[in-house]
Amino acid sequence: MQYIKDLACINCGKTFFPDPDKYLCSDCGEKGLLEVEYNYGLISRDWNPRIISENPDPSHWRYLPLLPVNPDSPRPPLRVGGTPLYRNVSLGEELGLEEIWIKDDGLNPTGSLKDRASSLAVVKAGEAGMKIVACSSTGNAASSLAGNAAASGMQAVIFVPRRAPGGKVAQLMIFGAVVISVQGSYSDAYDLSASSIDRWAWYNRNAAINPYLVEGKKTAVLELAEQFNWDLPDWVVLTVGDGCTIAGAGKALRDLQELEFIKKKPRLLGVQASGCSPITRAWKEGKPLEVCEENSLADSIAVGNPRNWQKAIRAVRDNSGAMVNVSDEEILEMMGLLGRKSGVFGEPAGVAGLAGIRRAVREGIIGKKEKVGIIITGNGLKDIDSARKAAGEPYRLAPDLGRMEEVVLKEGLDEL
Amino acid sequence: MQYIKDLACINCGKTFFPDPDKYLCSDCGEKGLLEVEYNYGLISRDWNPRIISENPDPSHWRYLPLLPVNPDSPRPPLRVGGTPLYRNVSLGEELGLEEIWIKDDGLNPTGSLKDRASSLAVVKAGEAGMKIVACSSTGNAASSLAGNAAASGMQAVIFVPRRAPGGKVAQLMIFGAVVISVQGSYSDAYDLSASSIDRWAWYNRNAAINPYLVEGKKTAVLELAEQFNWDLPDWVVLTVGDGCTIAGAGKALRDLQELEFIKKKPRLLGVQASGCSPITRAWKEGKPLEVCEENSLADSIAVGNPRNWQKAIRAVRDNSGAMVNVSDEEILEMMGLLGRKSGVFGEPAGVAGLAGIRRAVREGIIGKKEKVGIIITGNGLKDIDSARKAAGEPYRLAPDLGRMEEVVLKEGLDEL
Repeated sequence: MQYIKDLACINCGKTFFPDPDKYLCSDCGEKGLLEVEYNYGLISRDWNPRIISENPDPSHWRYLPLLPVNPDSPRPPLRVGGTPLYRNVSLGEELGLEEIWIKDDGLNPTGSLKDRASSLAVVKAGEAGMKIVACSSTGNAASSLAGNAAASGMQAVIFVPRRAPGGKVAQLMIFGAVVISVQGSYSDAYDLSASSIDRWAWYNRNAAINPYLVEGKKTAVLELAEQFNWDLPDWVVLTVGDGCTIAGAGKALRDLQELEFIKKKPRLLGVQASGCSPITRAWKEGKPLEVCEENSLADSIAVGNPRNWQKAIRAVRDNSGAMVNVSDEEILEMMGLLGRKSGVFGEPAGVAGLAGIRRAVREGIIGKKEKVGIIITGNGLKDIDSARKAAGEPYRLAPDLGRMEEVVLKEGLDEL
Repeated sequence: MQYIKDLACINCGKTFFPDPDKYLCSDCGEKGLLEVEYNYGLISRDWNPRIISENPDPSHWRYLPLLPVNPDSPRPPLRVGGTPLYRNVSLGEELGLEEIWIKDDGLNPTGSLKDRASSLAVVKAGEAGMKIVACSSTGNAASSLAGNAAASGMQAVIFVPRRAPGGKVAQLMIFGAVVISVQGSYSDAYDLSASSIDRWAWYNRNAAINPYLVEGKKTAVLELAEQFNWDLPDWVVLTVGDGCTIAGAGKALRDLQELEFIKKKPRLLGVQASGCSPITRAWKEGKPLEVCEENSLADSIAVGNPRNWQKAIRAVRDNSGAMVNVSDEEILEMMGLLGRKSGVFGEPAGVAGLAGIRRAVREGIIGKKEKVGIIITGNGLKDIDSARKAAGEPYRLAPDLGRMEEVVLKEGLDEL
């Protein structure tokens, strides 16, 4: 907190004291999302890549000077961040690229990148003296909040839309959250969470309006930069739902450039599902967002009324980026391709970015010789139904070697 | 490999050259499980805790001198091991203990401790010049083999019993494995895998008879020892199915003691499900194993004909340990307790050890003031059906604040 200047409204520029429960600009309301502003000069004086490299903490708290928390505040004990990065040659070949790197953020404690934001939320709730944290979510934000709240002895209240996959809901319940399955769309779930948070004064972990959560999400890209020894690839690819994750990427790049930890910024590719792509449309047309239907199996990014679209589009524009859409069929295909080529099992929203890369290469947006890094944002185990659609069914055999021989011949195993 | 003396038969003591596809004693057959013997004097000369602490590799390959692979052999790129360890005070209180530590091995790349063994299997298959690796498994060994094989460009062939949960099967398919759902018990799946491996000369990753896999599993305890700064708790607790994991724990403790990295060995508590506890019975009665039915929802440890029971019982005996059984009801209860108290979501077989701890404390086997470490061996996302049984159902509400008020009162949220 010693490095924070203030919270600045992205609409009117007015600044505010960084209270832990200050969410929106007092003048602009819902249009006035706030952004955490740091004193980069002070940070530079105390902190640099060499100091980071000597920090034995593998979690995302190693970037503490760039996180908007009091250094003495209690933190949830789960090890958030420090996820692995793999280069994959054969996957690159399939996508038409010479060099692709995969960061598996599905190995966060509750299985998604959202742990990065939720761990921040729990710290800020504690700083605000609150014992209940709440959010609406299609799943990952919720389970990460429930897990991090449980680890910290707080109570989570979670609003999920009716279509949230069973695995994600079960995980919430196991973490002891009070779970409200709102019989309606994601927007209905969001609205009931907002009015409940208002009515009972709970801590608000709705990422779009809570300025601190983008700061947690940005650690995925801070980490990526460190893993690439502060020389990021030409492109960083992320899927886009509410807009908050790619906004976090944009914020990380701004931080890293201001601190001169990186010499050049990568370009950002944002990927949405064709069945729900309001941010791509607003970006392409240069117009305000229009709310749309939510028709995609990639539930984590099927957000018809994304609250953070402005920060998302700004992140893409500020980083010479692009937006593309991909179909559900392409997403399912990529679940299998990623698994077969790398041993990483990503959820649909997590692998949609791969389909986006293929499309961007075909359309000439990404050059074949450009280096690409992609963050797989969630674990495939969270959405088994989609995995089944993508993967098909096993051979069902009586315990008999003759039947097995048929499989061996059919699969060509005798020729390997 | 420069540190390996030989493979020794645990039945007759005869020794063999450590060929990568040497599985059993040539004289004793299935009774003659082999054990990797190291030259501890040589290892001590080259390696110690200080050197380990300076190794930047967080994966289990940091323990290379104690792993039976050629240092130059290609390794699967997935980051296996390096899983987090958490102290949890409130969970300890619930179980009647002052100090309990949880190691979340569900955060391995494919979601279970079995990645530690499968990564070894893939290396050994490569050393043997084989391109197909095969095993029978209730799920975790299989998905870890499929994932590590995919990451290495090898083909996995997996035999699963009919009752394997859908999530685990889908994960296998995503990783591109050829999956055979054997319409029978785990023993039927095992037998068909054994005859197929024999018939087509595939690499055998059946942990019970492949001596190298126990060596991979032992890294969970090597890591635990390092995380405790080489001063392990009074008890280390593991669930027991095929017997291979606790055998690995025993091997790790032997290694650590021979190398004098630890001063005293912890005691081992092995936990089986009441509905399938042949090793507990053999241990209690001091008699050879009797094959039994497989009646437990903890599918990963429901093994009626465990092939590695002798090594398991030896590990418990050599470490002044004990075995206890727990019911499915206790296991489901522990899924929720662990989640609510720690934010860790373990699969049934993973959390059964917690129920075992409670039982052991009540029976006076573990003293209330003794320090306990438990390894949660698999991720709860792998078995959502059990999680649902354990967790119940969410509130289903129309988007209406009045209905929400009823929930707030019922849950006592207004009083927090």
